[in-house]
Amino acid sequence: MPSPSQSIAIEFDKIRAAHEQIRAHIHRTPVLTSERLNGASVASLFFKCENFQKIGAFKARGATNAVFSLDEAIAQRGVATHSSGNHGAALARAAKLHGIPAHIVMPSNSAKVKVRAVESYGAHIVFCEPTEQAREATCAEVIKKTGATLIHSFENEDVIAGQGTAAVELLEDVPDLDVVMCPVGGGGLLSGTAVAAKSMRPRIKVIAVEPANADDAAQSFRAGRRIVTEKKFTIADGLRTNVGERTFPIIQHNVDDIVTVSEEAIVSAMRTIWETMKIVIEPSAAVPYAASVENKIALEGKRVGIILTGGNVDLDTLPWLRMR
Amino acid sequence: MPSPSQSIAIEFDKIRAAHEQIRAHIHRTPVLTSERLNGASVASLFFKCENFQKIGAFKARGATNAVFSLDEAIAQRGVATHSSGNHGAALARAAKLHGIPAHIVMPSNSAKVKVRAVESYGAHIVFCEPTEQAREATCAEVIKKTGATLIHSFENEDVIAGQGTAAVELLEDVPDLDVVMCPVGGGGLLSGTAVAAKSMRPRIKVIAVEPANADDAAQSFRAGRRIVTEKKFTIADGLRTNVGERTFPIIQHNVDDIVTVSEEAIVSAMRTIWETMKIVIEPSAAVPYAASVENKIALEGKRVGIILTGGNVDLDTLPWLRMR
Repeated sequence: MPSPSQSIAIEFDKIRAAHEQIRAHIHRTPVLTSERLNGASVASLFFKCENFQKIGAFKARGATNAVFSLDEAIAQRGVATHSSGNHGAALARAAKLHGIPAHIVMPSNSAKVKVRAVESYGAHIVFCEPTEQAREATCAEVIKKTGATLIHSFENEDVIAGQGTAAVELLEDVPDLDVVMCPVGGGGLLSGTAVAAKSMRPRIKVIAVEPANADDAAQSFRAGRRIVTEKKFTIADGLRTNVGERTFPIIQHNVDDIVTVSEEAIVSAMRTIWETMKIVIEPSAAVPYAASVENKIALEGKRVGIILTGGNVDLDTLPWLRMR
Repeated sequence: MPSPSQSIAIEFDKIRAAHEQIRAHIHRTPVLTSERLNGASVASLFFKCENFQKIGAFKARGATNAVFSLDEAIAQRGVATHSSGNHGAALARAAKLHGIPAHIVMPSNSAKVKVRAVESYGAHIVFCEPTEQAREATCAEVIKKTGATLIHSFENEDVIAGQGTAAVELLEDVPDLDVVMCPVGGGGLLSGTAVAAKSMRPRIKVIAVEPANADDAAQSFRAGRRIVTEKKFTIADGLRTNVGERTFPIIQHNVDDIVTVSEEAIVSAMRTIWETMKIVIEPSAAVPYAASVENKIALEGKRVGIILTGGNVDLDTLPWLRMR
């Protein structure tokens, strides 16, 4: 359990409350198994399919919980965030559900499909230079001008609590898991997952997986302090973010290990899941399965839950075609 | 209902019996809906996901039923078929389950992924020239030499009964459908689907959809007699076969309409389903949804079941990339 000294100590009660709050607005996604993948693995794998979630990713959970947790007067002034990916669409959708304005700051080089997704929920898009600095500055400006509330994609207690609800459902469906695995970028999903899983099943192991090209969380975990790194390219673009100041202490206290995988392993794992399970997942979602294939963790005979985080891919540029 | 004068009059009891016989060996596949696709449609759509079926296609149903329906002495001599696609894998798997040999005649230009699938079930593969004549001649030879029983992919009562079980499950899950749609190639799935659907819900409409480039079934249906055509290329390669001598009378008696769709519509429908539903389906499986998008049938306000027939695609050559 998170110690009381942390800047955000997520209690499991908050995750339970988040689940009640968002239940009507999200899908209870299925947990799928594959005889073929189990045959090829030393473990039994249970895939929590957040690619089937609203907006195509788990981010719908956290954003919805954050919007619905705002005081009504504050909510009416709107919400804002900067995101090139799924959180932007998730926040836009949550704001629409709640009938409030959303301002989404997006880098000018964002994939068209992501821009269209945000637009489809009627959000106000503000484009900026594709740097972290420009994103933050533009977002601050928008907030100053509109009075909107920043809903950060992971440095936010309500977002973290919302993301934790995926693990709640996974463990409700498969209570006797030995291990739960998820990817780590900013750490919102991982924090929520770890608190939920350890609360529901104290002896469960929580393993996070990260692209080797963006391994700040693994480095930080080993060093015992948050290390910010310059990221190389990774196909798992959702995981390029550095782990958060607020999420890292929760991760330190609740996660058992963080391992890394190569780009090749991510692409291969993604393709295997498409081919075998007949489902579309995005590269970031393939990262934990890649670790299981590469035997990065001792999983022999274990029952392993894997959160497939999302399914939003550009079908024009599949990574196994791009890599040639 | 099929009239007693037909060469194969499939009774619904045969389909029910098939379901009992194969139940333990197949998946009960889910029926999925999509708020987004419903929002874009005049109808409510219910997708029966046979892409999640064993071997990745509904063909597992018919082949399993055929193998398990054989007299034991005959079964022991093995089974044979010619197939470049899913039926070969389905028969190989069914034979393996039953512990008997399978001989699969495949054209020498078959996709490697299909060959590997058949091999993975331990079947004996015999390659032949890629013509219908060579396939049939080679298969006859294999049968003469081995004493194996031919299990045709659609001109077989047990196969048809097995394929009909997908519609049984669909109507068990969604009893109040107004329309059921499936693609038509040889007509095995369509025959079984039509008999099952009309038996369970007599006022349901059964609509078949065919690529315009392979429209022999539509032509035959209009003419009232079986017309065999030379096929042009269609991306929906599973549907190039001419409708069968035995399946056509069942179709004539039980199907309400057969409509056609363009290649562009098939590719676009396939991509929309991947993108929106996050599932992998093969081109043939996209054909009925393409007809609904193109308003080829009056579906306004209707509850429409669509059988997504399979999910076996070559991920190296996606049709929307190929068409450029």
